[in-house]
Amino acid sequence: MNPIEKLTFQFERFPGIGPRQARRFVQYLLGSSPSSRNDLAEQIKSLGSFTAQCSQCFRWYAKREQKGDTLKSPGVKALPFCDICSDPNRDKSLLFVVEKDADIENVERSGFKGLYFVLGGTIPLAEEYPEKFVRTRELTARVEYDAVSQTLKELILGLSATTEGDHTRLILQEKLIPMSEKSAFKISSLGRGLSTGSELEYADPDTISEALGNRH
Amino acid sequence: MNPIEKLTFQFERFPGIGPRQARRFVQYLLGSSPSSRNDLAEQIKSLGSFTAQCSQCFRWYAKREQKGDTLKSPGVKALPFCDICSDPNRDKSLLFVVEKDADIENVERSGFKGLYFVLGGTIPLAEEYPEKFVRTRELTARVEYDAVSQTLKELILGLSATTEGDHTRLILQEKLIPMSEKSAFKISSLGRGLSTGSELEYADPDTISEALGNRH
Amino acid sequence: MNPIEKLTFQFERFPGIGPRQARRFVQYLLGSSPSSRNDLAEQIKSLGSFTAQCSQCFRWYAKREQKGDTLKSPGVKALPFCDICSDPNRDKSLLFVVEKDADIENVERSGFKGLYFVLGGTIPLAEEYPEKFVRTRELTARVEYDAVSQTLKELILGLSATTEGDHTRLILQEKLIPMSEKSAFKISSLGRGLSTGSELEYADPDTISEALGNRH
Amino acid sequence: MNPIEKLTFQFERFPGIGPRQARRFVQYLLGSSPSSRNDLAEQIKSLGSFTAQCSQCFRWYAKREQKGDTLKSPGVKALPFCDICSDPNRDKSLLFVVEKDADIENVERSGFKGLYFVLGGTIPLAEEYPEKFVRTRELTARVEYDAVSQTLKELILGLSATTEGDHTRLILQEKLIPMSEKSAFKISSLGRGLSTGSELEYADPDTISEALGNRH
Repeated sequence: MNPIEKLTFQFERFPGIGPRQARRFVQYLLGSSPSSRNDLAEQIKSLGSFTAQCSQCFRWYAKREQKGDTLKSPGVKALPFCDICSDPNRDKSLLFVVEKDADIENVERSGFKGLYFVLGGTIPLAEEYPEKFVRTRELTARVEYDAVSQTLKELILGLSATTEGDHTRLILQEKLIPMSEKSAFKISSLGRGLSTGSELEYADPDTISEALGNRH
Repeated sequence: MNPIEKLTFQFERFPGIGPRQARRFVQYLLGSSPSSRNDLAEQIKSLGSFTAQCSQCFRWYAKREQKGDTLKSPGVKALPFCDICSDPNRDKSLLFVVEKDADIENVERSGFKGLYFVLGGTIPLAEEYPEKFVRTRELTARVEYDAVSQTLKELILGLSATTEGDHTRLILQEKLIPMSEKSAFKISSLGRGLSTGSELEYADPDTISEALGNRH
Repeated sequence: MNPIEKLTFQFERFPGIGPRQARRFVQYLLGSSPSSRNDLAEQIKSLGSFTAQCSQCFRWYAKREQKGDTLKSPGVKALPFCDICSDPNRDKSLLFVVEKDADIENVERSGFKGLYFVLGGTIPLAEEYPEKFVRTRELTARVEYDAVSQTLKELILGLSATTEGDHTRLILQEKLIPMSEKSAFKISSLGRGLSTGSELEYADPDTISEALGNRH
Repeated sequence: MNPIEKLTFQFERFPGIGPRQARRFVQYLLGSSPSSRNDLAEQIKSLGSFTAQCSQCFRWYAKREQKGDTLKSPGVKALPFCDICSDPNRDKSLLFVVEKDADIENVERSGFKGLYFVLGGTIPLAEEYPEKFVRTRELTARVEYDAVSQTLKELILGLSATTEGDHTRLILQEKLIPMSEKSAFKISSLGRGLSTGSELEYADPDTISEALGNRH
């Protein structure tokens, strides 16, 4: 493979990118200036030095210096947790379990003020070892830790309203219910119903009965 | 216009049908047997004789003879109300206001056992005379009638989760709240949240905060 | 089945119509006036009396009285052929074989002035008896008849540029080539190449080599 | 902007990539190993050293050493032209003018054996200075050079079958016709017609008349 084909092949591994679009990306870079290519390369290379996965919520975040600014050079000492986990104003009694980082951005926009835990995906049906796919162990460790200090009052399971999401929710509930009984925190799930923009005519019976159940 | 063009033009007025599909319909009928064309024509012509709009819920229904069978000949005396409104086993304390007939089929599948009222659509924004678009007068008359016999305990507004649906809901609430206070029935709306199949990443902030509010 | 369900079922058999749209059609008709329903029914019922399948090109057409106007009453004697086949100004030396009636409308718009033959579809791959699917017998009879009067100079095979279209073309050529050699008419196929709106980047190799072969 | 947002912003400038997919790319890279990120960065950074734009056809190509292998280190002397332009077996009498690099890959698959010229796009309608958008000057210089050695016999304009493509073709023809008359080479355009997969019913009148004109 020549350098053009090799780079095309790299872009084909990006999520949602096929051979044709991968080739377009390479053409776009070939047509860019060397300095802007260097810029992009530098940013990709240093991504690891300036970012970290939060050891509490497992979300990726940009490291900041102790005073709060984004890190300028990789050597400087960074804050240990992400900006949400280290924010003293967040409500530590609420833990929102989400599938992936992108979910957090969306939930933040809705005004939620508690903390998060990024599970890392959903558990495939008929999968015997869920811990290979998602952070079930890390979640139970986190919950156990919170239980000691008795900060946790409610754990919200924010999984997709899909078959895999429901399956994942059941498995997590099984693991978490004994802990919730011992440490007196609540386990809740997101309410279902008509989502913005949807019409009764096209809603499925499950959504309608949930929407009826949640009427107010 | 010749007979082929005239019939094409008729089909173009069917909901969601453009000129190309209208022509396909005519070609399909040209290729059918005369007897099956006659059959279809007969069914369309007699639609009015064998169906009626329920004078209580305004839904279209197939007329039945007094004993319960579908009407065989147009002269026979039919039951005055649709099969849902005349069913003694339905819960008369619940009134579900929907936009159109198709919504009822969907709600029935979810197991709802109360009564319905078909509004006939939504009210366009900035429309001064809602009664020109939807059955607001018929709805208030119905509610007033129920109030006399004190059967109504809850009126559920089952409008689309769209801007027009919300607008319609507000106008109806304005009209209905004074009646509800006088006659002690509740006015409720369908719960919102994640609908089946949706993921947190793609949900809008409103849906997320409703889903959070409805968590259980 | 009640009258509403029965009519819904009839519309489900229309080309491209599923249960949901069929129900919408019935709702649309329920909401129409009885007179407009009667109108539609009349037009469907009389479709057969006012139209005929041309015995020369097999296209469906609106019957006209001897003077030329569209037929007003079913009893009157109509012209024997469709308006294209009976038009003395059409070029009888060119015969354009198309798959279906809708193709003719489209070809007419391109300014073609010859005659047509409607094959009735394409022949499925691996089908032993093509005459069950398309009018191969009627086509060879027509060509034989034209050969006697030596009017036919060129037969154009206007089939889809698809695998089934190509397959049908091969079978027709096999049957027609001996006749064309005896009666000295040409058999041609539509040129292939870039169609309006298409770009080189997305064209398949076949289309490109045809477009190269047809360059001018 | 922090490093995550900055890189997201870079990916948003990639062709066809919106904010959501840009974020997914960054998440994908955050989840990759540092070594694979370094790999990608290295390939992007060195893209310019190992590739060149052919000074004859203006296509981007991977530089090769004099013996023919892809360049291993940036210092080594590379062949001056791309592998197509420097291939002695290509037919130098045919020059295929295409819009972009990706077109060449497609034309190669169709078996074309001549040479290419990459125009760099199409000329917007009502644009006074076409040379700002596409390589009209470089094209005329190339044609003039070929004219001296009398190698060029035919120049094929392989533009999109779109309004802009047609407009570009007309402008190029205007510039090239005087040269073609002086130096006795032909200017041709790709044939149009039904492209693979298309049906007569959905073809536009232009495509049908071209397909009729190109029948064979």
